[in-house]
Amino acid sequence: MLRKNRLFTPGPTPLLPAAQTAMASFTAHHRTADFKALFQHVLADMKDFVGTKNDVLVLACSGTGMMEAAVSNLTSPGDKVLVLTAGKFGERWTGLAKAFGCNPDVLSAPYGETFSLNDIRARVAPEVRAVFVQATESSTGARHDVEGIAKIVREHGDETLLVVDAITGLGTTHLNVDGWGVDMIIGGSQKALMMPPGLAYCGVSERAWKRMDTTTSPRYYFDLRKERKSAAKGETAYTPATSLFAAMGAALEYIRGMGNGDLAKGREALVNNAELCAEMTRAGAKALGLKLFAASPAAALTAITAPDGLDSGKIVKEFRESFDAVVANGQGEMKGKIFRIAHIGYYDYLDTIGILGALEHVLARLAETRVEYGAAVRAAQEVYARTQFGKRQLVGA
Amino acid sequence: MLRKNRLFTPGPTPLLPAAQTAMASFTAHHRTADFKALFQHVLADMKDFVGTKNDVLVLACSGTGMMEAAVSNLTSPGDKVLVLTAGKFGERWTGLAKAFGCNPDVLSAPYGETFSLNDIRARVAPEVRAVFVQATESSTGARHDVEGIAKIVREHGDETLLVVDAITGLGTTHLNVDGWGVDMIIGGSQKALMMPPGLAYCGVSERAWKRMDTTTSPRYYFDLRKERKSAAKGETAYTPATSLFAAMGAALEYIRGMGNGDLAKGREALVNNAELCAEMTRAGAKALGLKLFAASPAAALTAITAPDGLDSGKIVKEFRESFDAVVANGQGEMKGKIFRIAHIGYYDYLDTIGILGALEHVLARLAETRVEYGAAVRAAQEVYARTQFGKRQLVGA
Repeated sequence: MLRKNRLFTPGPTPLLPAAQTAMASFTAHHRTADFKALFQHVLADMKDFVGTKNDVLVLACSGTGMMEAAVSNLTSPGDKVLVLTAGKFGERWTGLAKAFGCNPDVLSAPYGETFSLNDIRARVAPEVRAVFVQATESSTGARHDVEGIAKIVREHGDETLLVVDAITGLGTTHLNVDGWGVDMIIGGSQKALMMPPGLAYCGVSERAWKRMDTTTSPRYYFDLRKERKSAAKGETAYTPATSLFAAMGAALEYIRGMGNGDLAKGREALVNNAELCAEMTRAGAKALGLKLFAASPAAALTAITAPDGLDSGKIVKEFRESFDAVVANGQGEMKGKIFRIAHIGYYDYLDTIGILGALEHVLARLAETRVEYGAAVRAAQEVYARTQFGKRQLVGA
Repeated sequence: MLRKNRLFTPGPTPLLPAAQTAMASFTAHHRTADFKALFQHVLADMKDFVGTKNDVLVLACSGTGMMEAAVSNLTSPGDKVLVLTAGKFGERWTGLAKAFGCNPDVLSAPYGETFSLNDIRARVAPEVRAVFVQATESSTGARHDVEGIAKIVREHGDETLLVVDAITGLGTTHLNVDGWGVDMIIGGSQKALMMPPGLAYCGVSERAWKRMDTTTSPRYYFDLRKERKSAAKGETAYTPATSLFAAMGAALEYIRGMGNGDLAKGREALVNNAELCAEMTRAGAKALGLKLFAASPAAALTAITAPDGLDSGKIVKEFRESFDAVVANGQGEMKGKIFRIAHIGYYDYLDTIGILGALEHVLARLAETRVEYGAAVRAAQEVYARTQFGKRQLVGA
């Protein structure tokens, strides 16, 4: 049977065809009126996509580059910062804070779990210059309580900044960036924006801009104040990744269409879509007797614990070999123990039902226990019918 | 008359169609065998493109990001370094060196000129930890004598590193990277590689790798040792700009074809092509009575001084309005005084003759003096005929 290559990885994610063609056909130089118009349109639209009235900047780098920008722009060597970590990407905050000479207080939760707000409250103090956290920890599929964390940080006034890596969180999680008082929120192109990797972006609060007046960590390529100054003139400080900007413009138009011409509504529709894909997938996995790995699962991805005695790498391999579908293994210490199915961006009903059907075959082939074909699919259909048509239209009812 | 949008800017440059389609159609995740194969192939080919046996790394950033990587990986705060500057990009080295706490000794030459080797010799000493220079200064069209500079630096043994920004130099200038002893050479995707901006690359000598054992400037996203370790395993440290890697693979194949299957020969053919375009353009400009701005002109681009009393911005505007051809104005203090026509990468005979024909119309329209139609074109044809067919086949002979 024909097998189409399909990504179910938490980034890169499936590409929007309109973004691919926009990328291939854009040829304008970056110091022309054509690019300037695209650039200004994209930056304005990105505010609606991020859900902020603050300036949004877009740089040529991966998400890690923008995480570095947060650390190098908002801290000085010796600064006390609080890092909240419960997975591989939390650990990246620690690495970055140390690389730039900060003095990080690291609050860890076990992989798959999230933080106690009381533990956080006990550690936030005016001398903590910044708190770094993920909205969703892609390595474990856990969702962190950004609203609750922001509330604690804001109780301390303007002394402590809150920096949120929402690289897989934006477009999959309802985030009230300005309302909660998030100071820097970070995203990447290869996630809910349905386009290739190569761009990262951030929304920056006035509190954070003010902080940059006094911070002394070295920065040049990632100097956000310089970028902001250039953006006000409709350009970038250094050569932008023009073709990816064109893809971004096309993706934002598509998301605007999801909101019937309103981009902010389109973003909410995209989040709801991820949530429905995730709920269907969780129901499907449970129907097969599988355990979800994350205690508070994110809609960005579903991390599923491999059945006892079965290496999750074999599951990943079987998905690829039988269906050319790419799901993700665990990372670091979770490798071999979990597999991860993403719902970020460009996924629909057929994708979701299809991957659950495939999961049934994969388990039937690899696991010791008997699999009832259709069980995961049916459970997902029941979720779909309930949420889309109301309870009375349950399948078979 | 139909007007095709054409870039004659020193980056972005015209795109290779095969690179555009490769970029649009590549969808693989970056932790798959498909991407790994592409990645390893590209890194191996990039050695031939750069002309080095040293490791070449490719990162998601603009050229400035890789310039920062040179400074942050190869120096420590307080290090004495020598910056050679004769234009806007030389000044960027100064800015970077200061941002990372170096103590730069700045040797300046006026815009459009290059350095006296004696001046350089007088300043290089074992306590100078690194020398930073451009191979070709894109803001002025000048070529610097990398071979001569390298000779001086290497006389001092291994204490001083030579870092060359060859962003517009690679693929337009014959560079013997290993033979001359260049320690770090830097390029960008949107130049002779005929693809969009978004990737930068570098070749790094063993001397430079060794230096990184002791340097202390903060670096994380641009940590080259971490990238090298990942590359040895066939992957990148952080999410690579996958679609641009696909474009890079296609561009390298095209250049290999220029060398009849030999990529190193293809690179030399590409340099010769730029040199011929540049020589034709210089001859054409001179035939119109125009003055070349650079004393030692690079093949990457030709900077031409606007006729007395004519703002070069008007020339740039007229090229765009009448022909949708984008040539570059001067930058910084050169704005309004010069215009720049690039020869980097994907230009052929028809492009070169065409832009010279257009230049004649532009001048006829804007300049006070009478223009003889065909004068620039004929001068360029004479160069072409002489170099391609030998002296006896001069046009009209």
